[in-house]
Amino acid sequence: MIYFNCDYTEGAHPEIMRRLNDTNFEQTVGYGEDEYCESARRRILALCGNERAQVHFLVGGTQANFTVISAALRAHQGVIAAVSGHIAVHETGAVEATGHKVITLPSADGKITAAQVRACYDAHWNDATHEHMAQPAMVYISNPTENGTLYGKAELSAISAVCRECGLKLFVDGARMGYGLASPKNDLTLADYAALCDVFYIGGTKVGALFGEAVVICDAELQRDFRYHIKQRGGMLAKGRLLGLQFDTLFTDHLYFEISRHAVDLALRLRAAFEKKGWPLLYDSWTNQQFPILPDEVYERLKERFVLSFWEKTDEKHTAVRVCTSWATTEENVKRLIEAIE
Amino acid sequence: MIYFNCDYTEGAHPEIMRRLNDTNFEQTVGYGEDEYCESARRRILALCGNERAQVHFLVGGTQANFTVISAALRAHQGVIAAVSGHIAVHETGAVEATGHKVITLPSADGKITAAQVRACYDAHWNDATHEHMAQPAMVYISNPTENGTLYGKAELSAISAVCRECGLKLFVDGARMGYGLASPKNDLTLADYAALCDVFYIGGTKVGALFGEAVVICDAELQRDFRYHIKQRGGMLAKGRLLGLQFDTLFTDHLYFEISRHAVDLALRLRAAFEKKGWPLLYDSWTNQQFPILPDEVYERLKERFVLSFWEKTDEKHTAVRVCTSWATTEENVKRLIEAIE
Amino acid sequence: MIYFNCDYTEGAHPEIMRRLNDTNFEQTVGYGEDEYCESARRRILALCGNERAQVHFLVGGTQANFTVISAALRAHQGVIAAVSGHIAVHETGAVEATGHKVITLPSADGKITAAQVRACYDAHWNDATHEHMAQPAMVYISNPTENGTLYGKAELSAISAVCRECGLKLFVDGARMGYGLASPKNDLTLADYAALCDVFYIGGTKVGALFGEAVVICDAELQRDFRYHIKQRGGMLAKGRLLGLQFDTLFTDHLYFEISRHAVDLALRLRAAFEKKGWPLLYDSWTNQQFPILPDEVYERLKERFVLSFWEKTDEKHTAVRVCTSWATTEENVKRLIEAIE
Amino acid sequence: MIYFNCDYTEGAHPEIMRRLNDTNFEQTVGYGEDEYCESARRRILALCGNERAQVHFLVGGTQANFTVISAALRAHQGVIAAVSGHIAVHETGAVEATGHKVITLPSADGKITAAQVRACYDAHWNDATHEHMAQPAMVYISNPTENGTLYGKAELSAISAVCRECGLKLFVDGARMGYGLASPKNDLTLADYAALCDVFYIGGTKVGALFGEAVVICDAELQRDFRYHIKQRGGMLAKGRLLGLQFDTLFTDHLYFEISRHAVDLALRLRAAFEKKGWPLLYDSWTNQQFPILPDEVYERLKERFVLSFWEKTDEKHTAVRVCTSWATTEENVKRLIEAIE
Repeated sequence: MIYFNCDYTEGAHPEIMRRLNDTNFEQTVGYGEDEYCESARRRILALCGNERAQVHFLVGGTQANFTVISAALRAHQGVIAAVSGHIAVHETGAVEATGHKVITLPSADGKITAAQVRACYDAHWNDATHEHMAQPAMVYISNPTENGTLYGKAELSAISAVCRECGLKLFVDGARMGYGLASPKNDLTLADYAALCDVFYIGGTKVGALFGEAVVICDAELQRDFRYHIKQRGGMLAKGRLLGLQFDTLFTDHLYFEISRHAVDLALRLRAAFEKKGWPLLYDSWTNQQFPILPDEVYERLKERFVLSFWEKTDEKHTAVRVCTSWATTEENVKRLIEAIE
Repeated sequence: MIYFNCDYTEGAHPEIMRRLNDTNFEQTVGYGEDEYCESARRRILALCGNERAQVHFLVGGTQANFTVISAALRAHQGVIAAVSGHIAVHETGAVEATGHKVITLPSADGKITAAQVRACYDAHWNDATHEHMAQPAMVYISNPTENGTLYGKAELSAISAVCRECGLKLFVDGARMGYGLASPKNDLTLADYAALCDVFYIGGTKVGALFGEAVVICDAELQRDFRYHIKQRGGMLAKGRLLGLQFDTLFTDHLYFEISRHAVDLALRLRAAFEKKGWPLLYDSWTNQQFPILPDEVYERLKERFVLSFWEKTDEKHTAVRVCTSWATTEENVKRLIEAIE
Repeated sequence: MIYFNCDYTEGAHPEIMRRLNDTNFEQTVGYGEDEYCESARRRILALCGNERAQVHFLVGGTQANFTVISAALRAHQGVIAAVSGHIAVHETGAVEATGHKVITLPSADGKITAAQVRACYDAHWNDATHEHMAQPAMVYISNPTENGTLYGKAELSAISAVCRECGLKLFVDGARMGYGLASPKNDLTLADYAALCDVFYIGGTKVGALFGEAVVICDAELQRDFRYHIKQRGGMLAKGRLLGLQFDTLFTDHLYFEISRHAVDLALRLRAAFEKKGWPLLYDSWTNQQFPILPDEVYERLKERFVLSFWEKTDEKHTAVRVCTSWATTEENVKRLIEAIE
Repeated sequence: MIYFNCDYTEGAHPEIMRRLNDTNFEQTVGYGEDEYCESARRRILALCGNERAQVHFLVGGTQANFTVISAALRAHQGVIAAVSGHIAVHETGAVEATGHKVITLPSADGKITAAQVRACYDAHWNDATHEHMAQPAMVYISNPTENGTLYGKAELSAISAVCRECGLKLFVDGARMGYGLASPKNDLTLADYAALCDVFYIGGTKVGALFGEAVVICDAELQRDFRYHIKQRGGMLAKGRLLGLQFDTLFTDHLYFEISRHAVDLALRLRAAFEKKGWPLLYDSWTNQQFPILPDEVYERLKERFVLSFWEKTDEKHTAVRVCTSWATTEENVKRLIEAIE
């Protein structure tokens, strides 16, 4: 079987494995204060163009999400997210488990708009009973979204502007950030993220690392005492070298960007193949996740050799599936899938 | 100004005040273990026809809601509610503050159906990633709902049956239960609630008491250690006599039912007056809350003498408002409002 | 049986009952925004000599404690308290249930010192692993303490000074504040509390009210959005008049101070009677709670007519008990107990 | 500098690194459901002699602790631990952040006794106000403790017996379990742990793995839905292979036991060297952590070439330090330290 169902089926980029092996017996201090973490931080901050930002390395996305959100909010505050946002759907209520409401906005494709955020904020404060409702205090978006769609610079800037007007913190979940940055439709840089967001993270788990997310905190208030929150929420890895070294490697010689582009290029070849067959796409994705709507008999046949991710039945005879590429996907496997499609 | 905006503008029924005065200097043990609480419990359990149920007296509705829900759920579980349910909207995220997700179902009129509950449950368990989602473990409904609508016996029985099939606890918020029981459309008794629900409460704050909700727990598992939860969540009133005596009074000589009927009768007179004018009703309520859609110029005029509760703009020239009666509403004030309407 | 076991066995001062009756059918707005609350606030702020402070009325002490603490702390922060403090022992882990550690300091008599607070703070920050420990951010003391002992002005000033140096919020639980203010050993005023604390509360439940605690917030940061926290934690009473009117009455014509003095005077007569018999006092209390160590045969005899509160066995033949007076204790009952003692 | 300050300064055992490299490009399903996890589970369960137990792999110790505890307790329950227990001191209030009180028992050397547990339980239930206190429901111990001391089979059996009598769950934190099992003073096996505990974990982070703890759940109630808790608390590693493969390797050909014995042997050589010099040991440790009390001038000299862990000043001229060995410690480095000592 060939797996296209998600973007975390393999291990890490060989260069990362090589360096992990090479440094295996070095003695380093723990908890993310070693020199590899420090080097990785410097590389990331340089790309962000913000020397005053902080970089913290966490193990996974759910952990990064609830640690950031619970560190940022007071007890009566909630976080705004798309109804399809990862924190709203697929984290077993992890944000609520830290005490905070996820305030959901409708979304057809995973994205929300600056106007929606503004309207949500205004609705809260214009309501005479606002003290009886969780107070919106942060906006969470994923870029790319869980549906493969992408916020462009104009969109992110508009959301950022609303957030600043309203005193909302802006948090971008970048679990697949590499695949967004590498999209032909992208016009954002890491420096843009750092300029527009209060906090965001650069995903490693899905983009070349064994695991790990690099959380970049621009907001001074949120920076304060953040390491306490990492420890309290179970995210402080004893052997911090593992995280530092991985991100140091990913941000040496543009590796992160190159392997991301590889994945997106292959995904777009698949997209072209689906379109050529006339199979519609559930979401207009130009990133590493594609959501073709397949005739059921096609889906059945493909399942014999390929693992795809069931998404939803779109009608009695069609099924939308998720097809993912990643930094590890081979041209050969993509060719096989395209042949099977054709 | 005459207040019709809510059902808690006055104090308590005079008979309650009389007994509070009469017993003011009696020495009683604290924390709900006095004889007045015990007497009130016996009266309620007799009406419920369930001697094995427990009755606990809490101070208010939000407190009752999160205390019951957090006592019933394990950390990974959530509670299903209508998107308009009180716990989902108007409790400042109190349920989330105890760590639990409120899983919302769409609702046009405040009610949800057994089929919706079943579908939500099935969707969870049929999803391959169900461990990544909060597990539904309880169903919360209000009867009457926040919109004045009412579940009948067939509807509540159907929801109860689904809950039992699925292992979901059923919790009914009865903040306005008296006004439901007194509705001409009602076919439920307290014994029905006790037979169909795992836990429910009989509201006092809005129905004749100064404050207080009587939580009836039928489910043995939830009964265990419930008083710890009351204490932990701030609901254990030192002078428990205050709660016991109020419910003892309300459930002596059918007082609770009589004063509820009074409120509903007056509300239905208002309903008739709105209908006579041809003003549509936003929800089809046969309880103490009415939701007429008023022409804006009417609304402006009424506001000069009456306090109504703004609900929403239904179009550019019309506004839906909430008009409440209660046990304390006088015929005279209702007449004045009807005259003003006419 | 005559109850001396606690200070909340009766109802409310007759003047409060009178006014509750007189205003029973007035229509007021809900949730503490009525004119009685406003009047009570003005009276309290005048006594505090701080027009910029906020006053909020909550129903009970545990509720007040966790609402204040969870509103004040970020997720990684804890509150320092005496090991015998009410929040550390007798609130079913209510503070922990909001996510925060109670950091306990040893105490023989219920009090802690400025030096202990300073040492605790220094120990945290001097520890290389401080990010691995809950960060102390607030100090909680009770005055009088749970043991009847009292902080004087010099002691409270010293604690306050340390708190300000260290950036710790100072919170005083004044569930029995009246009985502290009325003690012959007291040298504090409400204005002193307002000057020295970030937040404190004036207890009503144990001092003349049916229920209720008046939380005075001096710290501007903690004032922000506090009503959201009250609502979220279940403390926002629908009929706010009940709380406002009680405190308005207590702070009219010095009633609060007079009824407190009554209780303390009677307690000190009991103290004198214990001392006359040569029975030692477990704590040196000059407030309404006395802790005599009784020979067991005396304790057995007293139990036939009086309810006292078992405290602890001090040796095989002696038992320390708590004997409480309150605003409602009668001279006659005290005489009977003294006669029984003699 | 040579590091003896902790037991997690290096990476992983070379055999683990080899297999991670070998399998790097295998495609596996995520979240711990791959074949490597399955194989590791089978090996561990075989050693435990309990086929009905569950094994879950988590990333780190703090995460394992609060995930287990919050999964096991209802909201009003607390966990009993030594005052020096890791959850009580060094996890930034992580357990409290999930809502639960850590109920601490005094301990001079990191251990608590069955009698202490029984007394704590009895004190709770014999107290008339027990509903006002967090209910003890679980016992947490570390073996070896944070002080290097060890519970033997008789001690663990006694604690287990008390727990079963009282309905308390028994949880053993085995972050350093390998070093306990390898101690000359040990008489416990994994099968003993499985027979005596409700849940325990076998530490990998400190014993040969890059990271990871294998949680073994024997109690059926706690087994239910445990994966939801792992996900909610941020512990569900996307690439589960990383954990499964590490534990599979550690439990192949007795590797875990051999590398643990290596560390303990070296630690005991250091112990002998300290004793030879006449320097007292703060705790009587026969595991990989040693706590010599050094003359300050010795400590200063050693610090020039070795990193030790400051523990506490024992008097004006002496300092207790922690000296750790691990699976990765070399004989050569130990020899250098011994030479320096001599």
